[in-house]
Amino acid sequence: MAKERQGFTVWFSGLPSSGKTTLARMLEQALKQRGYKVEVLDGDIVRQYFSKGLGFSREDRIENLRRIAYVAHLLSRNGVVAITAAVSPYQEARDRAREMNERFVEVYVKCPVEVCIERDVKGLYKKALKGEIQNFTGISDPFEEPVNPEVICETDKETPEESLQKILKTLENLGFIEREEGEENAYSEEEEAVVRKRLEDLGYL
Amino acid sequence: MAKERQGFTVWFSGLPSSGKTTLARMLEQALKQRGYKVEVLDGDIVRQYFSKGLGFSREDRIENLRRIAYVAHLLSRNGVVAITAAVSPYQEARDRAREMNERFVEVYVKCPVEVCIERDVKGLYKKALKGEIQNFTGISDPFEEPVNPEVICETDKETPEESLQKILKTLENLGFIEREEGEENAYSEEEEAVVRKRLEDLGYL
Repeated sequence: MAKERQGFTVWFSGLPSSGKTTLARMLEQALKQRGYKVEVLDGDIVRQYFSKGLGFSREDRIENLRRIAYVAHLLSRNGVVAITAAVSPYQEARDRAREMNERFVEVYVKCPVEVCIERDVKGLYKKALKGEIQNFTGISDPFEEPVNPEVICETDKETPEESLQKILKTLENLGFIEREEGEENAYSEEEEAVVRKRLEDLGYL
Repeated sequence: MAKERQGFTVWFSGLPSSGKTTLARMLEQALKQRGYKVEVLDGDIVRQYFSKGLGFSREDRIENLRRIAYVAHLLSRNGVVAITAAVSPYQEARDRAREMNERFVEVYVKCPVEVCIERDVKGLYKKALKGEIQNFTGISDPFEEPVNPEVICETDKETPEESLQKILKTLENLGFIEREEGEENAYSEEEEAVVRKRLEDLGYL
């Protein structure tokens, strides 16, 4: 049985194919192993359930993100870790999500668009570049770089495991998750320093 | 701190002004007092967060109820009691909500439309009768009577407290909530008989 603990929201943002879903799923597994209740609100799942009648205009995207933020709020205030993994391209929408969720960590999955185009997990960049998809983030719609993310994962430079450890370390340093026993040795000094620097810059430490 | 327990969904349905929200809020309080985590997904809250772009056509109402059912599913599978209190006029939508939610109790808040018109909590019947609101359930849009609700609360004949006790008793008999200590005397034989009869008719007992 999952332990009874406070929930929180981990809000991923990043270009299509930057690695959001991969990291969200890895984080889900890592937290479940530690006994947390976790729900991943993946962009596709959310579009399937909440977005009929919404298109890809700025206004509609913001509305979509507002819905995700609200569901995350309902879950996290009931002890669940809500992990969202939508593209989430606008600062305004991310700010609102943060306002709606008291215990909130923003993870910017940073990756140059050229690398994302090479990966093109769902083949959508190809279509967007041909003009077959309109308002495609990174090609024909802007991605506003997050101004205050607690974690930045550079997925063209780090392994997924390294990115995951940064996120876990940040959650521990913020007191959102408990430090694992004997974990002192689980991270390199370098990883630890990167995370601490980031949280210091943000004024948390 | 709330005890760690399995969640479930209580799905209210009934005409506008039949008493859904009153009973949902009373049930919320009663369950919170017993230590459960509870979220009420009220029709108005849901419309505010999830329904932009949806109108009041049959199709759009079904889509709206599908969203409520999905949020209830996310909550209840994480140990939360999800209480929904939308009009929920179509059997098809209620059936789908039941399919989506394993631990599910349907409460039909039954009240003659004449009584609802007299109550007219939000003044909407008045407008609907004047033709100022279209597709208003009970006036210009059908309410399909639930065919298999676990509980029927007749709010023109019962007090709210009596209705609440029926619901709690049903939740206990289904094993969704624990029987309170010393509770044997808390219900009249008559109340107990009504609830047992209903669950027998549905094949639960």
